Amino acid sequence: MTTPRTAATFRPPIMAARAWLNGVSFPADRPLINVSQAAPVAPPPQALRRAMAEALEDTATHLYGPDLGLPALRSELAARWSDWYGGTVLPEQVGITSGCNQAFAAIIASLCGEGDEVILPVPWYFNHKMWLDMSGVRAVPLSTGPDLVPDPQAAAALITPRTRAIALVSPNNPTGVEYPAEVIHAFRDLARDAGIQLILDETYRDFDSRSGAPHDLLHDPDWADTVIVLYSFSKSFRLTGHRVGAVMTSPERLEEVEKFIDAVTICPSQLGQRAALWGLQNLTQWLAGERAEILSRRAAIETGFPRLEPQGWHLRGVGAYFAYLEHPFAMSADALAPLLVRQAHVLALPATMFTPRDDATGARHIRVAFANVDVVGIATLFERLETLSLPLAPTGGAA
Amino acid sequence: MTTPRTAATFRPPIMAARAWLNGVSFPADRPLINVSQAAPVAPPPQALRRAMAEALEDTATHLYGPDLGLPALRSELAARWSDWYGGTVLPEQVGITSGCNQAFAAIIASLCGEGDEVILPVPWYFNHKMWLDMSGVRAVPLSTGPDLVPDPQAAAALITPRTRAIALVSPNNPTGVEYPAEVIHAFRDLARDAGIQLILDETYRDFDSRSGAPHDLLHDPDWADTVIVLYSFSKSFRLTGHRVGAVMTSPERLEEVEKFIDAVTICPSQLGQRAALWGLQNLTQWLAGERAEILSRRAAIETGFPRLEPQGWHLRGVGAYFAYLEHPFAMSADALAPLLVRQAHVLALPATMFTPRDDATGARHIRVAFANVDVVGIATLFERLETLSLPLAPTGGAA
Repeated sequence: MTTPRTAATFRPPIMAARAWLNGVSFPADRPLINVSQAAPVAPPPQALRRAMAEALEDTATHLYGPDLGLPALRSELAARWSDWYGGTVLPEQVGITSGCNQAFAAIIASLCGEGDEVILPVPWYFNHKMWLDMSGVRAVPLSTGPDLVPDPQAAAALITPRTRAIALVSPNNPTGVEYPAEVIHAFRDLARDAGIQLILDETYRDFDSRSGAPHDLLHDPDWADTVIVLYSFSKSFRLTGHRVGAVMTSPERLEEVEKFIDAVTICPSQLGQRAALWGLQNLTQWLAGERAEILSRRAAIETGFPRLEPQGWHLRGVGAYFAYLEHPFAMSADALAPLLVRQAHVLALPATMFTPRDDATGARHIRVAFANVDVVGIATLFERLETLSLPLAPTGGAA
Repeated sequence: MTTPRTAATFRPPIMAARAWLNGVSFPADRPLINVSQAAPVAPPPQALRRAMAEALEDTATHLYGPDLGLPALRSELAARWSDWYGGTVLPEQVGITSGCNQAFAAIIASLCGEGDEVILPVPWYFNHKMWLDMSGVRAVPLSTGPDLVPDPQAAAALITPRTRAIALVSPNNPTGVEYPAEVIHAFRDLARDAGIQLILDETYRDFDSRSGAPHDLLHDPDWADTVIVLYSFSKSFRLTGHRVGAVMTSPERLEEVEKFIDAVTICPSQLGQRAALWGLQNLTQWLAGERAEILSRRAAIETGFPRLEPQGWHLRGVGAYFAYLEHPFAMSADALAPLLVRQAHVLALPATMFTPRDDATGARHIRVAFANVDVVGIATLFERLETLSLPLAPTGGAA
C-alpha cells in the first residue's frame, strides 16, 4: 500500500498555530498580538478598492481567462521587472498564478519527477517543503551559519544526479535576511554549471532595505536558461485574499506550467489580476510609502531589541516582514510557542516549522512576522517577551 | 533522468483549441460559434455583482482566510446539500476550493501515491486525466457502451490492489448523460465492498433535467466513509472567473485536503466565496430560471438535431451543458475540429481530447458545449453543420 501524497507531509503550520488560540481568552487591555502569518491586516488602498469595484462591471472579470494570466498583466509585469532590474523580461516569459505558492508548485512539477531532489537553505519556507514532500521530491537541507546566508560552496557539495534545482527566498522567509547580490550570483553560476535551475522567490522584494536592484541576474540575455523568478502581489498591494502571484521563466517552461495551472485551478482570479495590474500602473508611489512603513517597523525591531538581550534573547535576522529570534528558554520552540499564546498573548511560529526534524536550530528560534504590528505594537511585543517568566536554558542561549 | 510531472501529460485542450483560431477571420455575418468551453458567457446577475461590490468594502475580503474556506459558506453548503439530498452533510464535512478542479486534485493527493490507480469512465473529463498523469497515478479507462453509462460490473473487473478510487461525473462532462440513480448506487456499493472511494463530481447538478435528488447516497449516515462529492459554483452563479468549488468528505480527509490547499493556493478567493455564499442565500429562484433556460437549449438540441441525421450525424448524449455528437466524416475528430473552425466557424472539441489514445470512439465524436449559445445560436450551429461539405466515412457513421 502506497502512502498518499498528502500523508507525506505535515499539517499547515499557520492552521496548526491557530489551534493554540482555542480556549484562550484575551482581555481588552491585553489583546492577542498575532505575528504568526506574513500578511497585511489592512485592505488595499481605497483607490484600488474603487478600481476593483469598477472591474466588477466588466463581464470578462467574471469569466474564465487564459491559464497563464491576462496578457496586459503579463506585459506590465515584464516591463516593470525589465526596468527595475535593468535587464530584459519579455511578456511571454511571465506567467500569472493563483498566488506565489502555486508558482512554486507548478515550477516544481515542471522540473521534477518522483525521487528527484531540490536544495533548500535552512530554515526554509514551510510551504516549499510541504509541496516537495507531496511531490515525491526530496528537500535537501542546506545548513546556514550564524548569518543565515546560504553558502554556494556548501550547496555544490549537495548536488547529485537527482538534483533539479536550488530554491532561494530573498529577502528571506522566515529569517528576513537579504541575500547579498554576490551570493545570489554565485548560486546562479553554480546552477548553470550543474545544469540545474535556480529558483529565486522574490515575494518580499518590495520591502528590501537596499536601494536599487538586489541582483543583476536579469542582465544576462539568457537568464531564463537557468533562473526562475517567483513574485507575489499579495503583500505589495495587500491582496492576500485574492490570490495573485507570478513566475518568470522561459516560454517553453511556461507551457509546462500552463498544464499544472489548467488542471488545478484553470486560471487565476480575474479580479485579482485586474487589481494587480491597476496596482502596477498606479500604486508605485503608494508602495514606496508602504516600504518606508515596513522599514520603520524593522528599525523599531532593531532599536527595541537590546532590552531583551539581558534575558538571553538574540536577534539573528531581521528584514522584509520578519524577525528571527533566538530564545533563551529551557524548552524547544514548539513547546514555547503555545506558552507564548497563554502567557504573553503573542502568537508566533516556532522555527521547528521551518527546519528539518533533526536540525537543532529549529528548537532555539521563533519567527516574528512583524509587518502585522505597528511601531507601538512592536514595543508592546517586546515588553511582553521581556517580562516572561520561564525557566532559562543552562547555557543562557548560544553565543 | 526522471520525467518531470508535467511532461507526463498533454497540453490543456481548451488552450490547444484556441490556437486553431489563429489566422482565421470571422465576418460579422458569420461570426465564430464557440462551443468549446463549458462556461457561461454572461456575468452574474446584477444583484450578485452589487453584493460583491459591497463585499469589497469589508476588510476581510482582502485578507487570507481559512485554508478550507469561510465557515459560513461551509455551513450554508452543508445545509443546502442536506436539504437537497435528504441526508446529512455537516459543515465540517465541507471544504471550499479554488474551483472544482482543485477539489479533484487535492482529493487525489489525499488518496494516491506514485503508481496507484483511479478508474475513469471513457470519455473522461480531460483535467481529471491530466491531474492523474501529473500525480504519477494511472487513469484506468472504463469503456462505456452506446448509452455512455458506465457499467459497475465492468468496473469491478478493473479493480486491482493499486486502485484507490472510481471517479464519476454526473451529469457527465463531456457527454451530458445523467447517470441513473441505481447506477450511482451500484458504484457506491462496489467502492464500499472494495474498500476504495467513489468520487462523484456534481459540477452540473443544478442543470440536471430530472426533478428531485439524482441519488440518495447521502441518506446513508456513513456516506463519508466511501463517497466524496465535488461541486462547483462556477456554472450555477456564473462565477468562473472567481474560482470557487467545494468538496464533501470526512473531516479526517479534509485535514489532508487542507495540506494540499495550503501549499498550492493557501486559501480560495475571499470575494469568490462571499459571492458563492450570497448566491446560495439569495439566488435559488434565479438559478431555477437558469436551469429552465439550459433545459430549453437542450430541448432545442433534441428537436433540431434530426435535420443532421440524413448526413450521418448521431446525437449520442445530451444534458447539462453538453451534446456529444458522432460525426459522419472520413477523418478523425481531431482533424475535423480545426476544419470546423475554418469551414463552419464553429469551435468544438474533438472527443480525442476525452479518450485514451487507443480508444477508437474518440475519433468519431465531438463535444458541443451548448450552454454558451442560445436557441437561435443552436439553430445556426446546426445549419452550419448541415451544410458542411467534407468526405463521408465509408460506413456513413456507425449505427
